[in-house]
Amino acid sequence: MSSKKISIKDLSNALGVSVSTVSKALNGYPDVNPSTRKKVMKLAKELQYLPNQQAVNFRKKSSQIIGLVLPQINHFYFSKIVESIVELASEDNISVIVRPTFENLEKEKMALLELVKLNVDGILISLSDETRFPDHLIEISNLGIPIVEFDKISKLSPLDKVVTSDRDAAKKAVEHLISRGKKTIAHLRGSLLSQNSIDRFLGFKSAITDSGLTFEEELVIQVLPNNINESQRSFARLYKKRNDIDAVFAITDIAAIAAIRELKSQSIDVPSQVSVVGFSNWQISSLTTPRLTTIDQNAFEMARASYQKLSDNIKTKNNYTSREKETIFIKTDLIIRESS
Amino acid sequence: MSSKKISIKDLSNALGVSVSTVSKALNGYPDVNPSTRKKVMKLAKELQYLPNQQAVNFRKKSSQIIGLVLPQINHFYFSKIVESIVELASEDNISVIVRPTFENLEKEKMALLELVKLNVDGILISLSDETRFPDHLIEISNLGIPIVEFDKISKLSPLDKVVTSDRDAAKKAVEHLISRGKKTIAHLRGSLLSQNSIDRFLGFKSAITDSGLTFEEELVIQVLPNNINESQRSFARLYKKRNDIDAVFAITDIAAIAAIRELKSQSIDVPSQVSVVGFSNWQISSLTTPRLTTIDQNAFEMARASYQKLSDNIKTKNNYTSREKETIFIKTDLIIRESS
Repeated sequence: MSSKKISIKDLSNALGVSVSTVSKALNGYPDVNPSTRKKVMKLAKELQYLPNQQAVNFRKKSSQIIGLVLPQINHFYFSKIVESIVELASEDNISVIVRPTFENLEKEKMALLELVKLNVDGILISLSDETRFPDHLIEISNLGIPIVEFDKISKLSPLDKVVTSDRDAAKKAVEHLISRGKKTIAHLRGSLLSQNSIDRFLGFKSAITDSGLTFEEELVIQVLPNNINESQRSFARLYKKRNDIDAVFAITDIAAIAAIRELKSQSIDVPSQVSVVGFSNWQISSLTTPRLTTIDQNAFEMARASYQKLSDNIKTKNNYTSREKETIFIKTDLIIRESS
Repeated sequence: MSSKKISIKDLSNALGVSVSTVSKALNGYPDVNPSTRKKVMKLAKELQYLPNQQAVNFRKKSSQIIGLVLPQINHFYFSKIVESIVELASEDNISVIVRPTFENLEKEKMALLELVKLNVDGILISLSDETRFPDHLIEISNLGIPIVEFDKISKLSPLDKVVTSDRDAAKKAVEHLISRGKKTIAHLRGSLLSQNSIDRFLGFKSAITDSGLTFEEELVIQVLPNNINESQRSFARLYKKRNDIDAVFAITDIAAIAAIRELKSQSIDVPSQVSVVGFSNWQISSLTTPRLTTIDQNAFEMARASYQKLSDNIKTKNNYTSREKETIFIKTDLIIRESS
């Protein structure tokens, strides 16, 4: 029993705002002036107010609801994750409120606030492309609400995370091409800022250099990973310059199909002249001609590990904020089909 | 003021079970013995107890949550519907709890009970393949909980419904083939019990007979609409018998792609020798070679109309059960690409 515990009342007195405003600010309610919220959070931190424990006390008992925030639902990988998490949660009599952000940071913040308002027991989140800083996640965590990031995460946040081992997966895909005797391998990469894109590029690069091949900057081009026409045009430009390319590793199945389409239009045989490997194992990859070699991201395993981690955090909530955070890696599978 | 209103207490006395059991049974709580529930519901009906109005009074004020029950989430059409409904609801500050049934009737019933327990304001439901009778939906409706069926509906239920005009859509697709000069048109249909499959078949048949062509039973075969390999084998058997077929109308894009794959493997040109039209406009349909002509089902419009109908029902809840029910038809678009 060292010093006296700081109370909501102390914060209220110190700041000259009502107890209910302080409580609302700490609990993340949206109807609090943002600058007031900031002042409350700052002072709470300075005075070492224990927001988590207090917040836990404020919050009603378990709602048996968790929140799931992610970029999209109408997407092969994410819809599988939503379906799996909902199913796993229902076995525990937990309901799931799903909120897509459409890659928009403001929508992501609003979704989190609304979930807090609904008194959810915990939150699973995959970040929008626009999200650079994890402040809004940390705020949730400071309220004592367990939160786990999955798939699209921020390297800057001190939270539990579940991620695909993108780098290993990409390396495995490119090593497969090298084992088929391919030597001039192009890489269609995504955004320079997206962590998935960075990691897949690094995996590509290390497979090339580790095997003694020369890494050529020119063979790496940026595409819009989910836009088949743009990806095809970009690949066409590259292939015009470098028709010695004998293999392509693409960041997504769509980009891979774009490359195949361009090669076919030039009567280049896939895989004998140019092999192509994609990434994601979407349903389409088994329906194309030739069927696509790709990386399966194990959506179910991603869902299972993320839900399990959140579930554990909810059960051990009292020491949730003080605990060491963990990053779990989900293994991928190389699915070898006809395109390589 | 005619006869005395029947109360929960009357039901409780008549059946010799506690008031809380009667109330729980009427409110669909799962912790009531099923045979007790049946007895309560039966007597309530016989005595013309007004379950809806009473149930409305029992239930707490608006939870700002609606339930969405549907066969799958990891599915191009349904994931678009989930995403659209969640987005539309969030504009009204309504959260959505999604429950997939995986085409299983028991899961569908459990999902409904759990949603009742969560005190949802209303429910949107697309039925499982196993669901033949709508009793469990009527029970929900009798509790005064607004419920709207969409896409996969029961013709037997007296509820509001939003459906694709499958019959018109199929007719439009087949008329398009006829306008291209096709005369021997095969139809790959789905289950004999599924309403979608029945309606698409009827649309096919009426396009054939209305245009003066002869309807040949032999040209209609049943396939597993989402299984590409089985669909390809079934179509191969048909085409072996009837290689005078000059067009195919398939119940899904997958079945259409299966037919194209088989035709390509026999070096039959699509569309000049055999034209192929699918149904659904999944993402894959624009990625195949040749790109697929198909029917776009307007998932967003289905979501919008369903959500709007439910929202209206929630607002006018007091006269919800006594109101005439309505069926809304969602128009489809024929997307003409390279396969026809």
